[in-house]
Amino acid sequence: MARIKRIATASAPVNIAVVKYWGKKDTKLILPTNDSLSVTLDQDHLRSLTSSAAVEVEEEEEQGESASASAAAAAAAASKDRLWLNGVEEEIGSEGRLRTCIDELRNARRKVEGEDGGVEKIAHLPLHIVSENNFPTAAGLASSASGFAALVWSISSLYQLNSDSGGHLSTSALSRVARQGSGSACRSLFGGFVAWQGGEAKDGSDSLALQVAEREHWKDLHAIICVISDAKKGTPSTAGMQRTVQTSAALQSRISHVVPERMQRITSAIKQRDFDAFAKETMRDSNNFHATCLDTSPPIFYLNDTSRLVIQLVEELNRSSEQAGAGAGAIAAYTFDAGPNAVLYAPEKNVPLVLSLIRHYFPNADFDDPFKLLPSLPRDGLSSADLPSTFNKSVIPVSEAGAVRRLIHTRVGDGPRILGAGSSSTDDDTHLIGQDALPIRLQRVKRV
Amino acid sequence: MARIKRIATASAPVNIAVVKYWGKKDTKLILPTNDSLSVTLDQDHLRSLTSSAAVEVEEEEEQGESASASAAAAAAAASKDRLWLNGVEEEIGSEGRLRTCIDELRNARRKVEGEDGGVEKIAHLPLHIVSENNFPTAAGLASSASGFAALVWSISSLYQLNSDSGGHLSTSALSRVARQGSGSACRSLFGGFVAWQGGEAKDGSDSLALQVAEREHWKDLHAIICVISDAKKGTPSTAGMQRTVQTSAALQSRISHVVPERMQRITSAIKQRDFDAFAKETMRDSNNFHATCLDTSPPIFYLNDTSRLVIQLVEELNRSSEQAGAGAGAIAAYTFDAGPNAVLYAPEKNVPLVLSLIRHYFPNADFDDPFKLLPSLPRDGLSSADLPSTFNKSVIPVSEAGAVRRLIHTRVGDGPRILGAGSSSTDDDTHLIGQDALPIRLQRVKRV
Repeated sequence: MARIKRIATASAPVNIAVVKYWGKKDTKLILPTNDSLSVTLDQDHLRSLTSSAAVEVEEEEEQGESASASAAAAAAAASKDRLWLNGVEEEIGSEGRLRTCIDELRNARRKVEGEDGGVEKIAHLPLHIVSENNFPTAAGLASSASGFAALVWSISSLYQLNSDSGGHLSTSALSRVARQGSGSACRSLFGGFVAWQGGEAKDGSDSLALQVAEREHWKDLHAIICVISDAKKGTPSTAGMQRTVQTSAALQSRISHVVPERMQRITSAIKQRDFDAFAKETMRDSNNFHATCLDTSPPIFYLNDTSRLVIQLVEELNRSSEQAGAGAGAIAAYTFDAGPNAVLYAPEKNVPLVLSLIRHYFPNADFDDPFKLLPSLPRDGLSSADLPSTFNKSVIPVSEAGAVRRLIHTRVGDGPRILGAGSSSTDDDTHLIGQDALPIRLQRVKRV
Repeated sequence: MARIKRIATASAPVNIAVVKYWGKKDTKLILPTNDSLSVTLDQDHLRSLTSSAAVEVEEEEEQGESASASAAAAAAAASKDRLWLNGVEEEIGSEGRLRTCIDELRNARRKVEGEDGGVEKIAHLPLHIVSENNFPTAAGLASSASGFAALVWSISSLYQLNSDSGGHLSTSALSRVARQGSGSACRSLFGGFVAWQGGEAKDGSDSLALQVAEREHWKDLHAIICVISDAKKGTPSTAGMQRTVQTSAALQSRISHVVPERMQRITSAIKQRDFDAFAKETMRDSNNFHATCLDTSPPIFYLNDTSRLVIQLVEELNRSSEQAGAGAGAIAAYTFDAGPNAVLYAPEKNVPLVLSLIRHYFPNADFDDPFKLLPSLPRDGLSSADLPSTFNKSVIPVSEAGAVRRLIHTRVGDGPRILGAGSSSTDDDTHLIGQDALPIRLQRVKRV
């Protein structure tokens, strides 16, 4: 019989980069070839939820007790660590990214326990970890960023390492750990607008996330995720990005000056809440990133014909708005990660127009505004009254039904949250692990 | 009544670049931002045919005679120049690229007439020019390169300027004139493998075509043009390339080292008839070029989903061949100009396999081997016996019928030809202009 000695549960948000991460200079430490910058999305909408528990396995308690101070005990515990991901138990293994993250946090706890005799001894206990995303894989969102962020936040809360739990590790320090799980996970440790500073140090000590601006600074920024149908599975990003590093000349200019200059300009656009400048940098960076993919040998394609149509639609919308003058500027920005799905950013006031346009040109997209961000669903059909006068309605054809499968409307959000921590699981909905130290298969994880 | 004083007819081939031209540093003189290199295709198959005639218009003969030595007379003649293109009369105008080409050649003739009193005076006479392509626009081939090459070759033959006609202008010197009509036209003045040296001089004097190797050096090289259906009209290349020059960072690395290094490697591959190296450089250059298009703001797209599938198919074919070892190397190379159509290069022995593959994955492509290059049409259906053993048949899905509309099979060819020149039109099929100095609307131009 196993029982919980201590448990903590955290949630963490999804982030969508506006300056993309693509390429590692150290694949083990996950040190990127360039800085990147993202917007954290609201975890009231999309999030990963993770419970971590330090677990006593009764028959082994004596052994554990006697060896509690030793690294050998920690190693013994590690071999008993268990993980359930979206209801399915996964192998953690003795190496790999998950192991690295857990070990780093356990070692930090061991150090605290060694330095302060009064601290409860739990580092030598096996961990049971249960993680769930509330968005399906079909949403086309990378779950590794929010997943590793929630994992790191929940274990650091369990071990009382982070400053929120009275510990000594800053959020940026913890972002170094999350980075080794999945590079972009480091950016999900902050809300608002977050830079991942690539860093110079060989050991990765300065490769971490920094908050550029809080959510509250620019909470007017909304996002529309356009889930695009695609028959083909794209190149996995981990393999793809190293092929780019090895073969693309365009990546070299991206590293040496495109991104450094863009980081400055987009940081300044965010500080000034200048959507027009923010949009231009975002779109150009997405295109530059996909250009380096195409410049790879063999070439990597993530954009498909529907992606191209979304780009052309947004470009025409912005062009006609700019032409209309009066400082109108960009209405929306597109960005594409390693897949065909578009994420559109727009100030709240532009969202109804953008949604109407997408729904007009890409009929039958599933959209029910699950987060109730709109007072009412946008009308079907394009109302010319809302469009810039020179908008060219035939810029793209109306696609066949379902080319965009689904629309998810959300907005900028805050950083990870600790939902609960203590010496036992509670009867409420807080934790994903029950008193028996096993996953509660939560019907209550409400999916989008 | 007008009558012909002298007439000449020339044909010129299409060329398909393997190192692409994209971007001008001087838009008036058409000076490119980088060198380029192309393969000239067989004009027994695809060609532009142009007749040029110096025409006496009777009522004006006196005036013409008295002023024959003066620039004023040439200008007066120029205003009466006429052009028929594929059966339709087009305005030449007093400026523009067509005017530049004609003026340069007329001035060269005037100079010869001025220096040698024994030379027949025809520079002061209006020109009637009739040009036809034997390939329809629907073939998706740029007709401006072969068209301007045929125009320059026919007028220079009419004026006896080129060395073939006993004149003093080398083919490279004439390529400078063709370049000002349409940049890539300069490369259609040679057969085989042709470099367009971008040049350094501000006046464009060193921006010209040079032959890298004759057709006979590597006559085994065949080409398959895959005409791909596309609903959308792409960005015109003239406007598109300057947008790239203004906005793309990737173009700068292309100019500064990607192309210079590639020109050296592909020249050496051609000289050694090393198809594997030739194929790799060709494919990488196509991808680098389309990457700079995507890196343009707003982005320019020429490849569509079908283009991507062709790329993935050829990459898999080459990968599996390479894996098979024994120095097998690449089987085919793809390249894409400013449109969705693929041109595949392959040694003759690989053509049946490549054709079978394309016809399998892209059913119903129209193919009747009009130039009778194959002993028999390839079988329908894929024969595994011909494929590398590790070829992954599910690398791409079988497309819907007609995604590739048409296949045209041709091969490397020779440079422009003079089909006839003399003091009057003949009764045979040589010229496109009749005794009345007007176009013979040739049913006899056999179209592909």
